[in-house]
Amino acid sequence: MRVDVRWKEKMQFKARAEGSGGEIFIDGGGEPGEEVLGPRPMEVMLMSVGGCTGIDILSILRKMRLEFSEFWIEIEAQRASDHPKVFTEITLFYRIKGDNIAPEAMERAIRLSQEKYCSASQSLKAPIRFRYEINGVVYEPQGGR
Amino acid sequence: MRVDVRWKEKMQFKARAEGSGGEIFIDGGGEPGEEVLGPRPMEVMLMSVGGCTGIDILSILRKMRLEFSEFWIEIEAQRASDHPKVFTEITLFYRIKGDNIAPEAMERAIRLSQEKYCSASQSLKAPIRFRYEINGVVYEPQGGR
Repeated sequence: MRVDVRWKEKMQFKARAEGSGGEIFIDGGGEPGEEVLGPRPMEVMLMSVGGCTGIDILSILRKMRLEFSEFWIEIEAQRASDHPKVFTEITLFYRIKGDNIAPEAMERAIRLSQEKYCSASQSLKAPIRFRYEINGVVYEPQGGR
Repeated sequence: MRVDVRWKEKMQFKARAEGSGGEIFIDGGGEPGEEVLGPRPMEVMLMSVGGCTGIDILSILRKMRLEFSEFWIEIEAQRASDHPKVFTEITLFYRIKGDNIAPEAMERAIRLSQEKYCSASQSLKAPIRFRYEINGVVYEPQGGR
């Protein structure tokens, strides 16, 4: 797997993946409120975790023949206060809207992603917690993580 | 630090960072050759490493008062063949063009990034190797990594 990340100007970089051809901008600059060309690198790292587990969930729910209308993941991360300011804990909040999604099915999908399939989560050192919401009702994982 | 990653359609997600406001698309679909909305999640993770160390290098070279005209990083990663297919080794190839950049200065900047400042590199489990090129001449790190 290959990507390149090229400096444009200021603290802005354009990144391109050789495999997919997909591109993003990463921007390390910008004062609060100032417009940016893209997210900061550590934000991008969290996004990769969300995309990874999100794609897993789509695939698993599809195999379970469960339909949904909306699906998003909110990710919050704690970081060490000293350099290199690594992630120390990441919490994923899966939120979904659909008519026939039982909490057991959703939790099984999340566990399959986090424990077996999600390359991004498992490539990180930090522990990852999760909870989930179905049609506005919040659930905590059963039986520990 | 907070981001959200929202499913759009097919295997496509739009990710937004609360802090910077920066947005990217992540696309898990697409057959080879088919157009994609954005890179795949694991490509995005590598991009975050490139952006992180790239911003470090910009800052350090600026403090050293070293000028350059072009700067990019090529990143290659090996992954495990079994699920969850984590990164097993990442190699960064720093490439720069500038008139007064000594190999020792460039190597010092890279080491400061990789060993002290780069949050993304240090948040990953996989070992990270590097080499660098200045005005077309390739250097291997001296004295081991």
